[in-house]
Amino acid sequence: MTTQTTTHGAAVPAEHLDPSKPHALEHITVVDFTRVLAGPTCTRMLADAGARIIKVERPGTGDDTRQMGPFASDGTSEYYRFANLGKESIALNLKDPGDLGLVKAMIAEADVVVENFRPGVMAKLGLDPVELVRRHPRLIVCSISGFGQYGPLHLEAAYDTVIQAVSGIMDATGAPDGGPTRVGTSISDILGGIFGYCGIVTALVARERTGKGTTVDVAMLDATFSTMEQGLMDALGIHQRPERIGNRHPSMAPFDTYSCADQLIAICVGNDHLFAILADTLGKPELAADSRFATNVDRTNNQAELKQAMEAVLRTDSAAAWHGRLEDAGIPASLVLNVDDTRRLEHIKVRGMVKEVDGFQVPGNPIKFGAYNSLGTMIPSPELDNRGDALRAEFAPGDVPRQPKGGDA
Amino acid sequence: MTTQTTTHGAAVPAEHLDPSKPHALEHITVVDFTRVLAGPTCTRMLADAGARIIKVERPGTGDDTRQMGPFASDGTSEYYRFANLGKESIALNLKDPGDLGLVKAMIAEADVVVENFRPGVMAKLGLDPVELVRRHPRLIVCSISGFGQYGPLHLEAAYDTVIQAVSGIMDATGAPDGGPTRVGTSISDILGGIFGYCGIVTALVARERTGKGTTVDVAMLDATFSTMEQGLMDALGIHQRPERIGNRHPSMAPFDTYSCADQLIAICVGNDHLFAILADTLGKPELAADSRFATNVDRTNNQAELKQAMEAVLRTDSAAAWHGRLEDAGIPASLVLNVDDTRRLEHIKVRGMVKEVDGFQVPGNPIKFGAYNSLGTMIPSPELDNRGDALRAEFAPGDVPRQPKGGDA
Repeated sequence: MTTQTTTHGAAVPAEHLDPSKPHALEHITVVDFTRVLAGPTCTRMLADAGARIIKVERPGTGDDTRQMGPFASDGTSEYYRFANLGKESIALNLKDPGDLGLVKAMIAEADVVVENFRPGVMAKLGLDPVELVRRHPRLIVCSISGFGQYGPLHLEAAYDTVIQAVSGIMDATGAPDGGPTRVGTSISDILGGIFGYCGIVTALVARERTGKGTTVDVAMLDATFSTMEQGLMDALGIHQRPERIGNRHPSMAPFDTYSCADQLIAICVGNDHLFAILADTLGKPELAADSRFATNVDRTNNQAELKQAMEAVLRTDSAAAWHGRLEDAGIPASLVLNVDDTRRLEHIKVRGMVKEVDGFQVPGNPIKFGAYNSLGTMIPSPELDNRGDALRAEFAPGDVPRQPKGGDA
Repeated sequence: MTTQTTTHGAAVPAEHLDPSKPHALEHITVVDFTRVLAGPTCTRMLADAGARIIKVERPGTGDDTRQMGPFASDGTSEYYRFANLGKESIALNLKDPGDLGLVKAMIAEADVVVENFRPGVMAKLGLDPVELVRRHPRLIVCSISGFGQYGPLHLEAAYDTVIQAVSGIMDATGAPDGGPTRVGTSISDILGGIFGYCGIVTALVARERTGKGTTVDVAMLDATFSTMEQGLMDALGIHQRPERIGNRHPSMAPFDTYSCADQLIAICVGNDHLFAILADTLGKPELAADSRFATNVDRTNNQAELKQAMEAVLRTDSAAAWHGRLEDAGIPASLVLNVDDTRRLEHIKVRGMVKEVDGFQVPGNPIKFGAYNSLGTMIPSPELDNRGDALRAEFAPGDVPRQPKGGDA
């Protein structure tokens, strides 16, 4: 048997991305008050898992991102599109008693409420999360914010850049002789959204056993801080102040990016055996015999000299040429790709990580299930209020009571 | 009512971190074959949510990270400690038929199996994920790997640095005139672990309804690629090749880091009203009247000149002094903190984001539930085989059959 046939799904990617399989969360209804990026990332993940998402938007303008670029040729916002696939939109004025009544009727039948207002706004609207759970004991109410629902900084403004700055991730990123560097995507917004998803789905599992809903409080700061693995090991574990170390690994070498004639190549060598093969592949077997580079500890201690010696050779040819040789030799290495090249990789296509929904390309779903739909939602992001009339009819308060569904007590 | 009393938990953080509350997933048993970082991050999250984690380690040396620094004063690895809190360790040789039999007996009673071997290794061991789910129809088997279980690159070596390079996140991070920059934490390993958690918990929710388990396939590459928000909007949405833009925002200004006399400050101004206040606070009201900076579009188009004008003033005083003035004026701003400063913030302490377990400080749990334990596990990371004898006794094959629990068909 070859690996191609023994590994899970290796031979059957088409089946794995079968759009006819059921979605994992298709029985879950979510009332979604989120705006911009952190909250909508969470509810986009819920939509990808098949949940019904009712997105409540401000009348007239809707979510702020509808006015934020980049814009497609038809004038619609790519920002809005990426984060709002699979949702139903209803435009409601939460300060209008009639609209608020409709929202409360929707919440009474929902499993989940998600919001990312500044802490306190939901309470002012008459939708305090603690009160909502008290009234609807099976309801899960998730609040995603910059600094969380309590703590001395909880009312601070929470842009992704602020959270990257406060969390330590910006200071940790960049060259030792350069400055703190923002991660080149809104990682704190996105981590807030992903951890919000984790909290909601965890609470759904627990509800099956306890019968109880809960509030969930996710702070972008807590989420980002919790990922600061190496820096926190230094700070909390050995009481050393972590330093920016550029692209290299703190305790393995060569494990860094290296300059070739045209561009960088990443090379990751974790043991002496691979290092000897690398030295041969570079045509410099003497490096493996050099006492400065004999063990991984030696190489890490002398990583700057090792990098200089390697780059003297690597600069003689292109990164692509070296990549081919290193691959043939079994050395872990890769080109540093612009995401515009990444999205064109056959591998990314085969895994459904770029999909076309309603004529527009969007990122796919990174969670692949054997038994459930792994493509994620194929429903386009909604026009403002696209389901307003239908939702008003469905949830109009004062109607004949419907079968309760995971909501009212 | 003040915000302090109306917002969820604002007045009662102590209750929120009450260690006596039940855990959300305390009924779930996980057999954990993971090593190093991506997989252990996933099962550490499951442990924080209260699941029982049985970590299967290689006899003699255990998880590679036991030998990886930084090391605490007692010689134990902080790397191992951070990623393995709350787990039970058993040392087993998976090539030994007796040990393999014990593993199969544990799996027969488990809800979840997690592994992050290279694709194909589980099958070679006789533990093929698809076969395991076939034999135990309620079982969830999650595989976390660099490139996933199928696709042309699925057998490539998968270090965090390689995935950061291939995913586009490295190319997107850094200054326009600098090079591609590695995110200063192992973000691709960690995203692989977090999305693995998402997949497992989603599958647990679905199992309650369908009665069926499933395989889950999470690739660090897919996970990282899916977070490349702004770059993918450019590449997929408007077919432009994204560029590295340093610390600034692509479509808002001033929204960047700025040099003060001593260090950087992050300032985030999203509208004209705030910009006028900023200009006053800087003692340069004329900036708000300057036609180059009249609207957000003008400011974004002329952000380099605006940055120069702002830094001419900001360099006259310290970042801390400016931060105080900007806060008083209501301008979103923050110092850029080293994570060693972040962990000392009162806010981080109040939210339980640093906790002491068995005398060692470790990061806390970023998911705060009203109804469930939000501290995460307080069980220390295990010594190798700390529960070996107990687990052998509990799961010895051939015993009197126990009550099936979510496992055997």
